[in-house]
Amino acid sequence: MIIIMRPGAAKEAIRNITEQIEGKGLQVHLSQGHEVTIIGVVGDKSKLHGINFEIAEGVDKVLPVTESYKLANKKFHPEDSLIQVGNTSIGPGTLTIMAGPCAVESRDQLLETAFAVKKAGANFLRGGAYKPRTSPYSFQGLEEEGLRYMKEAREATGLRVICEVTSQHAIETSVKYVDMLQIGARNMQNFELLKEAGKAGIPVLLKRGLSATIDEWLNAAEYIMSEGNADVVLCERGIRTYETSTRNTLDISAVPVLRSRSHLPVIVDPSHATGVRAYVPPLAKCAVAAGADGLMIEVHPNPACALSDGPQSLTFEQFQQLTDELRPYAQLAGRKF
Amino acid sequence: MIIIMRPGAAKEAIRNITEQIEGKGLQVHLSQGHEVTIIGVVGDKSKLHGINFEIAEGVDKVLPVTESYKLANKKFHPEDSLIQVGNTSIGPGTLTIMAGPCAVESRDQLLETAFAVKKAGANFLRGGAYKPRTSPYSFQGLEEEGLRYMKEAREATGLRVICEVTSQHAIETSVKYVDMLQIGARNMQNFELLKEAGKAGIPVLLKRGLSATIDEWLNAAEYIMSEGNADVVLCERGIRTYETSTRNTLDISAVPVLRSRSHLPVIVDPSHATGVRAYVPPLAKCAVAAGADGLMIEVHPNPACALSDGPQSLTFEQFQQLTDELRPYAQLAGRKF
Amino acid sequence: MIIIMRPGAAKEAIRNITEQIEGKGLQVHLSQGHEVTIIGVVGDKSKLHGINFEIAEGVDKVLPVTESYKLANKKFHPEDSLIQVGNTSIGPGTLTIMAGPCAVESRDQLLETAFAVKKAGANFLRGGAYKPRTSPYSFQGLEEEGLRYMKEAREATGLRVICEVTSQHAIETSVKYVDMLQIGARNMQNFELLKEAGKAGIPVLLKRGLSATIDEWLNAAEYIMSEGNADVVLCERGIRTYETSTRNTLDISAVPVLRSRSHLPVIVDPSHATGVRAYVPPLAKCAVAAGADGLMIEVHPNPACALSDGPQSLTFEQFQQLTDELRPYAQLAGRKF
Amino acid sequence: MIIIMRPGAAKEAIRNITEQIEGKGLQVHLSQGHEVTIIGVVGDKSKLHGINFEIAEGVDKVLPVTESYKLANKKFHPEDSLIQVGNTSIGPGTLTIMAGPCAVESRDQLLETAFAVKKAGANFLRGGAYKPRTSPYSFQGLEEEGLRYMKEAREATGLRVICEVTSQHAIETSVKYVDMLQIGARNMQNFELLKEAGKAGIPVLLKRGLSATIDEWLNAAEYIMSEGNADVVLCERGIRTYETSTRNTLDISAVPVLRSRSHLPVIVDPSHATGVRAYVPPLAKCAVAAGADGLMIEVHPNPACALSDGPQSLTFEQFQQLTDELRPYAQLAGRKF
Repeated sequence: MIIIMRPGAAKEAIRNITEQIEGKGLQVHLSQGHEVTIIGVVGDKSKLHGINFEIAEGVDKVLPVTESYKLANKKFHPEDSLIQVGNTSIGPGTLTIMAGPCAVESRDQLLETAFAVKKAGANFLRGGAYKPRTSPYSFQGLEEEGLRYMKEAREATGLRVICEVTSQHAIETSVKYVDMLQIGARNMQNFELLKEAGKAGIPVLLKRGLSATIDEWLNAAEYIMSEGNADVVLCERGIRTYETSTRNTLDISAVPVLRSRSHLPVIVDPSHATGVRAYVPPLAKCAVAAGADGLMIEVHPNPACALSDGPQSLTFEQFQQLTDELRPYAQLAGRKF
Repeated sequence: MIIIMRPGAAKEAIRNITEQIEGKGLQVHLSQGHEVTIIGVVGDKSKLHGINFEIAEGVDKVLPVTESYKLANKKFHPEDSLIQVGNTSIGPGTLTIMAGPCAVESRDQLLETAFAVKKAGANFLRGGAYKPRTSPYSFQGLEEEGLRYMKEAREATGLRVICEVTSQHAIETSVKYVDMLQIGARNMQNFELLKEAGKAGIPVLLKRGLSATIDEWLNAAEYIMSEGNADVVLCERGIRTYETSTRNTLDISAVPVLRSRSHLPVIVDPSHATGVRAYVPPLAKCAVAAGADGLMIEVHPNPACALSDGPQSLTFEQFQQLTDELRPYAQLAGRKF
Repeated sequence: MIIIMRPGAAKEAIRNITEQIEGKGLQVHLSQGHEVTIIGVVGDKSKLHGINFEIAEGVDKVLPVTESYKLANKKFHPEDSLIQVGNTSIGPGTLTIMAGPCAVESRDQLLETAFAVKKAGANFLRGGAYKPRTSPYSFQGLEEEGLRYMKEAREATGLRVICEVTSQHAIETSVKYVDMLQIGARNMQNFELLKEAGKAGIPVLLKRGLSATIDEWLNAAEYIMSEGNADVVLCERGIRTYETSTRNTLDISAVPVLRSRSHLPVIVDPSHATGVRAYVPPLAKCAVAAGADGLMIEVHPNPACALSDGPQSLTFEQFQQLTDELRPYAQLAGRKF
Repeated sequence: MIIIMRPGAAKEAIRNITEQIEGKGLQVHLSQGHEVTIIGVVGDKSKLHGINFEIAEGVDKVLPVTESYKLANKKFHPEDSLIQVGNTSIGPGTLTIMAGPCAVESRDQLLETAFAVKKAGANFLRGGAYKPRTSPYSFQGLEEEGLRYMKEAREATGLRVICEVTSQHAIETSVKYVDMLQIGARNMQNFELLKEAGKAGIPVLLKRGLSATIDEWLNAAEYIMSEGNADVVLCERGIRTYETSTRNTLDISAVPVLRSRSHLPVIVDPSHATGVRAYVPPLAKCAVAAGADGLMIEVHPNPACALSDGPQSLTFEQFQQLTDELRPYAQLAGRKF
């Protein structure tokens, strides 16, 4: 931690701060410039818990030096993680393709989609049974019935299946049916849900919050991991900006930034990031080129009639064409799918 | 709903769309310009559920005309609501002052604060027993023990008490101790929590999400209201922008915007909006001048040692001085406190 | 300047950096924690120009300690500035009201408006003769003809007049007609224009850029001031965010933030900030309550027919009503107008 | 144009509007729903200039249907443009690589860089002679001396050369030395500069403004084109968001969005977008995969000593490695370089 004093801060103010720090058993290093004094703090910062130097007399600002996330931090775990999900792995050398409808609407819709995405090369089926919708009057999902179809699709196709959870109850139910849980953007800082997901015993896909910083996102992963679940995969799905041409703004730089800060795998969801079907294929390729470990893509047998997110869903043919086009990009990136 | 066709869209494409709409029993009005055709749709839009015109042949864009929130909408409820909380009201003609520590830390801290804010003119005591914190290693709150102190403070001072809830369990526990529930910014789109709050039987303060639009916020209120709870108060607490001089950016325009779109009361939280103690008083006054129905302000007996949000908390003296300065502003605005 | 090394940075990397710094005659203070080493740099940072420590071996990040603006900085000029414009002052104890049409459209329109705003209490007439418009096909302004009307209005009413300038040519022409130049939001980082404005010899109103940070804004003021012109007034006019209910988002916190960082006066433009006439009065009051030194408000004889920004312009009656309502707020804030 | 009336708007209010429109010779189509009336306007909208329906009695909102840019609009120019710059083309089938230092610092620095980037496959040399810098105390560029070195480098290597211009004077000087002008992000809405660039007689690279929407950007291109210069290339260089891990946020979706709205070529600048050297290579590949027509990349003989933007500049070796890695991506995208 670094404490920067205001110009002309009184010696007494500086002494007051250094005494508090030393009184807790930490060390202080003073840099006295002609304008400004800087106080470097060395030692275990947790001992300073409950002291707010920001508002102490003479203080200009307080800067943290180390990140608050530890388990997700590459500094303490330099090797990139390979997350095992059933017979599949997510991480270095792989390209995971999760595909399926935004919402599970019926048994037929789901099974038909499962076979189509399997044929095109996906290794996960996605499908929402609990739908967080902006308006209470929109379709809210089939809940456990939807999960049963997911399980059936898994058995029929051999795909791994992943489903969003929105409550403790949804987690308890979902673990009986699916291989991996998804925490959606709107719940990225629903810390109670994160803790429950950390206890669920199966891998978790953690989507980035609508306007979460990368550090907040890694702290959210830390909530899951600190409950004992190390199998966390991050999913960039676009952030909120002033630009309205796309539903969200895909922050593709998050891929290399995360690669430098964390060992956790990162996948990209171009469907939610753009909200527009025509933009999904170029952004899927771009994600692979940027180093993503996988993709999540919405596919629907008849997007024009989808109950949720139809405008951003690919048809089976479009998805097949996309995976065909993706193969050489995966190869260039040293990834198999 | 308005559907705008691409320039040169085929007659067939237009016919295809109008037939789908008329087939569901709605009416169509065509405006054929020399470049563009516009299709106005008249009738009950819910019958078009599951048809995504955005991706139909020839369509450029689809524009909604009416808001998806109804119960929170001023168009259908033109008179501003006055929300009753115990012997207190929030809304027209009043200025509600909610004050207290970010987190309940101890019985002494809470009671001391309760008497101080009461003396200065507050009518609500705020205090967090369940704390949503960015890092899992930060103080997470006293939970039910904290709620017991809240109830004790209520009995000792006659103040109304309000507490943030972060899970169904927290709601079930809190309703036994407090007068009003608070849904925090990070949970504004935790729809399961909103539904539970809608069933809790006591008024709810709904904070704006970190990057929620005003329409998303009103839709979140609609989740609570559609469960039968009409007693919702909105709280502007700053939004996320690129500017880092303040913790968040207080969107003070939200006050008149909400006044024109909704009948629900609006209060402002300058403490979380800025994160800096020195900016709280000018922004508290500005909120009253802009037409807010109340304020939520963090007050702590010793901000320098607060376990949460110390740098933005006022001391008792600072809070007393602020309420003194606020009185003439309240009077100018035609509000009593 | 503070340099933070990566965990486990080699001693050689640290020595390499300290030697470079000491080689330029500055001093180094090392804080060696168990994870991280921090290097505090003391002395004249300009001697380190052209050394990019960010990419030196072993460096994690480099943090500046002092602001790059000096003339605009409160640290070196603690007393708030009172800027003289003709017989008027802008700054402590005053409330400057600049009012008038977005664009000068005709002699009649301008003179009629000038008399109306004068009567209501304004002390400046605003009016654009050079209009920066998003589309090249929108009305671009009357240019020098407009300036002549401004001068005539000044002589007829005794008001000070202010006009936006968009080029060196516009500055050279405007100084012959007006009392104060305005640099608009889109030109806030048009550094060539700022330098010219710094040489113009009359006071300058500097609007905040669409997405400028407060520090960038103060650096822009520094460009003007470093050319010898200390008479700079800042104008908050809303920033760009994701929220679309208002044209921009008024960052009202900028008022107290600027008060703490700079001695320059700050005024607020609620017309451009919101783009909606109905929101102008509550936000004008809120700006005064937040401590602004003045307001800039668009007024038009017939907003429904204004060639630019009609929807946000007040009629004469609305403006008169607003100034009537503002007087007690100005009094509360200790300001005369 | 579509005008949406408030629920319950009086018949008189509707008649008032339709009469104004019909009075100007345009046609009106009414869609009367049970809640809301929609007025579709058909005909030449320029005849309605100076009528602000937004504030007419009974109006809720006014929605534009057609874009204000015409020359840059794909709707009226469906074939993608190929821009000729000397013996080089930018557009379909090509991959233009512009590389060089942020600022021209000396003859040696520039010539050495020119030969290195030429060898690695670049076809343009970039280099700033007029530098827009946040602080007036930062290096401001060599101006005409820098341009002379650019011309010398062009003659020595056969590369095309491009230079940023920041004033009319800089344009007049630059056209004597360089092949293409660059308008930087901070000047994207410096409309006087855009008009001058439109008259300069050589191609223009237009960078996106710090927080410009794609529509504003295309309108800025329209300013240049409406002066008779059709040779405009767009450059995405990151937008401003709340995320601080990167200098800006690369909006990679802008590439497919522009492809669908405009016929102008689009290149991407990953150096300014991220501000971090290590992120440049993955984002360069990602830009090619997303469909960009080219890249602008900062290269410096010794980034650690660069006078501007050193931390984001590649060394010669890093740039050579990047172009080697880019070739197969270009091939996949059907582009030659």
